[in-house]
Amino acid sequence: MTLMILDLIGIFFFAVSGSLLAARRNFDIVGSLLLGSLAGLGGGVARDLIIDQGVPKAFADPVYLLPPLLAAGLVFTHALGVQRYRRTLLVFDAAGLALFCVTGTLTALQAGLHPVPAALLGVTTAVGGGLLRDVVANEVPQLFNPRGVYAVPAMLGAGLASGLSVTGLFNPAVGIGVAVLVFALRILSLRYGWRIPLAGRTVASAGD
Amino acid sequence: MTLMILDLIGIFFFAVSGSLLAARRNFDIVGSLLLGSLAGLGGGVARDLIIDQGVPKAFADPVYLLPPLLAAGLVFTHALGVQRYRRTLLVFDAAGLALFCVTGTLTALQAGLHPVPAALLGVTTAVGGGLLRDVVANEVPQLFNPRGVYAVPAMLGAGLASGLSVTGLFNPAVGIGVAVLVFALRILSLRYGWRIPLAGRTVASAGD
Amino acid sequence: MTLMILDLIGIFFFAVSGSLLAARRNFDIVGSLLLGSLAGLGGGVARDLIIDQGVPKAFADPVYLLPPLLAAGLVFTHALGVQRYRRTLLVFDAAGLALFCVTGTLTALQAGLHPVPAALLGVTTAVGGGLLRDVVANEVPQLFNPRGVYAVPAMLGAGLASGLSVTGLFNPAVGIGVAVLVFALRILSLRYGWRIPLAGRTVASAGD
Repeated sequence: MTLMILDLIGIFFFAVSGSLLAARRNFDIVGSLLLGSLAGLGGGVARDLIIDQGVPKAFADPVYLLPPLLAAGLVFTHALGVQRYRRTLLVFDAAGLALFCVTGTLTALQAGLHPVPAALLGVTTAVGGGLLRDVVANEVPQLFNPRGVYAVPAMLGAGLASGLSVTGLFNPAVGIGVAVLVFALRILSLRYGWRIPLAGRTVASAGD
Repeated sequence: MTLMILDLIGIFFFAVSGSLLAARRNFDIVGSLLLGSLAGLGGGVARDLIIDQGVPKAFADPVYLLPPLLAAGLVFTHALGVQRYRRTLLVFDAAGLALFCVTGTLTALQAGLHPVPAALLGVTTAVGGGLLRDVVANEVPQLFNPRGVYAVPAMLGAGLASGLSVTGLFNPAVGIGVAVLVFALRILSLRYGWRIPLAGRTVASAGD
Repeated sequence: MTLMILDLIGIFFFAVSGSLLAARRNFDIVGSLLLGSLAGLGGGVARDLIIDQGVPKAFADPVYLLPPLLAAGLVFTHALGVQRYRRTLLVFDAAGLALFCVTGTLTALQAGLHPVPAALLGVTTAVGGGLLRDVVANEVPQLFNPRGVYAVPAMLGAGLASGLSVTGLFNPAVGIGVAVLVFALRILSLRYGWRIPLAGRTVASAGD
C-alpha cells in the first residue's frame, strides 16, 4: 500500500516533467497528457513487463491515469512554473528518479528477483520514463548529459534499497530517507556541475 | 475472425505509411520492409505484451508478415503514390489509427481488462506503431504535431468501442462505423487545420 | 550452455559498439555503461519478452551484466581503438549481429515458435540492440543506412539457422559457420559499398 502511494507520487513527478517538456516544445494539451503519461508510466510498465507478473499495473487499475491527468492540468493552468520550465522540469525529474529507484527495486524483489538484477531493474524503472520522454520528443536524453550525475544516484539508491531489504533493515522511513539522499545528490550535482570521467579518456581530455 | 481480418487490414495501412516514409528518406527496400513492419506490427506487439496472453500474435502466426511484405512491394512498384507521398502517408496512417483504436480496445476487453484501461490500451495500440515509426526514422512524431488532431479521435473511438462493448451494443458493423468516424475526424482535422489548446497557456498565446 | 556462452559473447560485441558510440558523443563513463548495456542487452530482452518464458535472462542472472562492464572498461582504458572508433564500432556491431541472428533464432525455436516467426525473432534480436543504441543516441540507425547491407545478412543467417535446425542439420560448429558467413557478408558489404534497390524506384533513380 505504501509502495503503491509512493509509486503514484513518483508517476506524478515524472508526468509533470513530461508535460513541461511538451509545453516547451509547443505540443498541444493532449500531447502534454501523452508525453506526461509516457514519462510517468513508461518506466513502471517496462518493469512490470520484465518481472512478468501479469498485466502491468498502469493498465490494470485506472487510478494510475490520475497523476498524468493532474500533471497536464497543472502545467496547462500554470500552477507549476512553465516560465522557468527547465529548472522546474529538472527538479520534478529528480524527484521521480529518487522515488522510482527505490520503489522499482522493491517491486522487483517482491517478484522474486535476485538482489543484483532487482537493483538493476530499479535503475531501469528510474531512468526508463525520462529516457522514453526525451527520445520521443527528439531530445538528447538527460541520462546522457555529462553535466551533473543522473544514473549514479539512482544506482546508489537502488543498491541501498536492495541491500537493506535483503538484510532486513528496510522499512518505509528508511526508503524515504534513501529517496531523499538520491534527490539531494542529483540536485547538488546540477547545482555544482559535478562531472565524472568521460567514456573514453582521450576524448575526455579533448572535451574538457 | 472478423477481429483478425480488421487487424491485418490495419497492419497493412500502417505498414504502407512506414514504407512510404522509408521511400522519402531514401532507405533501401529492406529498410522499407523493416520500417513498415515496425509501424504495422509495433502497436499490436506492445498491446499483446501488456495483456500477457502468451507470444504476441505477430510472432505466433506467419500470416502477420504478409501485410508488410505487400506494403513494401506496392511502395516499391509505385502502385501507391510515392510522388505525393506525404498526403498518401497521412491517409494510410489515419486509416490504421481508426482501425487499431477499435481492434486494440476489443482485444484488451477480451483479455479481461477493465473498460477504462482497455480503452487506454486501444489508444496505445493505435498511436504506438506510428510513434515507433517516427521515432526510429528520427522525425518529430505525428502524434505531437499540433496541426490537426491525432490522439483525440483515437481516444473517442476507443472510448466508444469500450462503452458500446460493455453495454452489449457492439457488433462488427458498429465497429466499422466507429472506425469510419475516427478516420473522418482525423482527415477533416488535417484538411481544416483544427487545433486544440497548447500544453501551456502562455506558450500557447505566444505561439498563435 | 554453448548457446549462453555465444549469447554472452554477442552481448559483449554489441556493448563495445554502444560504449564506443558513447565515447564519440562525449557521454561520461556511466553513460558508456548504460548505452553499452542497452545495445548489448536490449535485443535479447525484447526477444525474451516476446517468447514469454518468464523474467528475461538479462534480469534473471547477474552474469549478463559482466560483458557491458568489461566493454565500458576496455573503451575507457583505450584497450580498444577509440581513435578509429567508427571502423571499430562497425566491426563489433557486425560481430554482434552475426552471433545474435543465430542465437536469437535458436532461443525462439527452443521456446516453441514456428520456424518462420523464430527466424523473424532472430532478426529482431540481431538488429534490436543496435537500433535501440542508435535511436537513444539520436543517430540515424545503421539499420537504415543504404550503404552496405545490414538486415539482409541477418535474415540469411536467421533463415539458415531456422531451416537447419528444423531439418536436424544444426550443431554448434554449423552455427558458428553461419555466424562467420553473416559477419563476412556484412563486412564485405561495407568494404565494397554494396547497395540494394531503394524503397521507391523513382527516388532510387534520383538518388543514384
